[in-house]
Amino acid sequence: MKIARFSHEGTIAFGIVDDDELVVLTGDPMFAGYDTTGDRVELVDVKLLAPVIPRSKVVVLREGSGHEGARPSFALKPNTAVVGPGDPIVIPAQSNDVTVTGALGIIIGTFAKNVSIADAPGVIFGYTVAADVTARDLEQLPDQAATASAFDSFSPLGPIIDTAYDPATAVIHGRINDGQFQNSSAAVMEHSVAEIVSFASSIFTLLPGDVILTGVPGSSGTIEANDAVQIEIPGIGVLVNSVRSA
Amino acid sequence: MKIARFSHEGTIAFGIVDDDELVVLTGDPMFAGYDTTGDRVELVDVKLLAPVIPRSKVVVLREGSGHEGARPSFALKPNTAVVGPGDPIVIPAQSNDVTVTGALGIIIGTFAKNVSIADAPGVIFGYTVAADVTARDLEQLPDQAATASAFDSFSPLGPIIDTAYDPATAVIHGRINDGQFQNSSAAVMEHSVAEIVSFASSIFTLLPGDVILTGVPGSSGTIEANDAVQIEIPGIGVLVNSVRSA
Repeated sequence: MKIARFSHEGTIAFGIVDDDELVVLTGDPMFAGYDTTGDRVELVDVKLLAPVIPRSKVVVLREGSGHEGARPSFALKPNTAVVGPGDPIVIPAQSNDVTVTGALGIIIGTFAKNVSIADAPGVIFGYTVAADVTARDLEQLPDQAATASAFDSFSPLGPIIDTAYDPATAVIHGRINDGQFQNSSAAVMEHSVAEIVSFASSIFTLLPGDVILTGVPGSSGTIEANDAVQIEIPGIGVLVNSVRSA
Repeated sequence: MKIARFSHEGTIAFGIVDDDELVVLTGDPMFAGYDTTGDRVELVDVKLLAPVIPRSKVVVLREGSGHEGARPSFALKPNTAVVGPGDPIVIPAQSNDVTVTGALGIIIGTFAKNVSIADAPGVIFGYTVAADVTARDLEQLPDQAATASAFDSFSPLGPIIDTAYDPATAVIHGRINDGQFQNSSAAVMEHSVAEIVSFASSIFTLLPGDVILTGVPGSSGTIEANDAVQIEIPGIGVLVNSVRSA
């Protein structure tokens, strides 16, 4: 099932994608299930929003330790960093070197703490396409590194959540304007999605709607004002964002 | 005015402290103002809770760069790290060296982005007492540093929010059991509260209820299971937390 969050005639709602239409839900499916209002709207008539605003956090997997058996390493983005499809990524005044990496976004479906690897798939609601944006120049400064990925608009998510996606087959394509900068496969990830969720839940309670980005090392592109960024995960969709200066 | 968040007979509410009583409010004063229900409850009859659960984030000032004119440096704790007065700080299984530092907690009152230093006092709702807990051993590991302060229970807040407190005079006393480990003054802080809020708002939008902890370097104490931690800021109150193992 593919779930979108959208605005239509001044109202924000969730809907199930059914061909070119959305079957409108009464509430947030991560809390209220799949009751429908009975309404349908055309996809072309709505503005798709970030499919979830995390209640708590966006957790970013930082891979690339280079050795087998390494623990996952995580960074945090606040929920204020999340934007949706079509929204601009804003280059902050503080940075002259901003990069983007395509990532698979794992959407958490239930409260989860100290979940085993075996139980981890059961706490996942679905998957979305994500862009992980970082101010690389600030990341190199010890006193600014912890917030280099936390700026407003540095966590685009969308266009939809696929609840039936198989992450083991994930392929991520990243494009800036007409140039491809990323073509990565889940096969090269050091950790499985279940391992990532399990380990994250050993640090902090994951709330329904929290998002974990599974970054892939060495596949980033530098962005500047007026660029167009496309992150595509075949089977989920294409996340498109413009870029502008602050 | 001193504002508490509390549970009483199964209900969670905010109240204004009036001597030994709480004047019960109809909603969250950061969103709904100060309308009262007409009820009063005795302070001794309620359980005080964390006076706010941030909508987005706890921002932690990391001072100690050692040079004048340095920019403030921030780390992030997720809202899942927040606990209230009397709640246990839980030592995670991953760490053998957990420390606590007393901090002044700045509570944000309005949406705030790119606020000037002059305007920063106007976006502050009030102040509370905070304990900034960190797994020091994990903080030394490059792959675990970003989440070393983010564990559940690593951000105790309370007992109340003082909306009239003058942060320029802040003194912070920290005690573990009967031993004082911290006796620090706002006078030694590298940055004023207004500078801290202004700079934080240049990185991310601050939401009503977000909290900024103004950590003071070099004033931490190591905690172990069965310790009792007290952080006192005269004029606001004493935040007391127990310590236990996971």
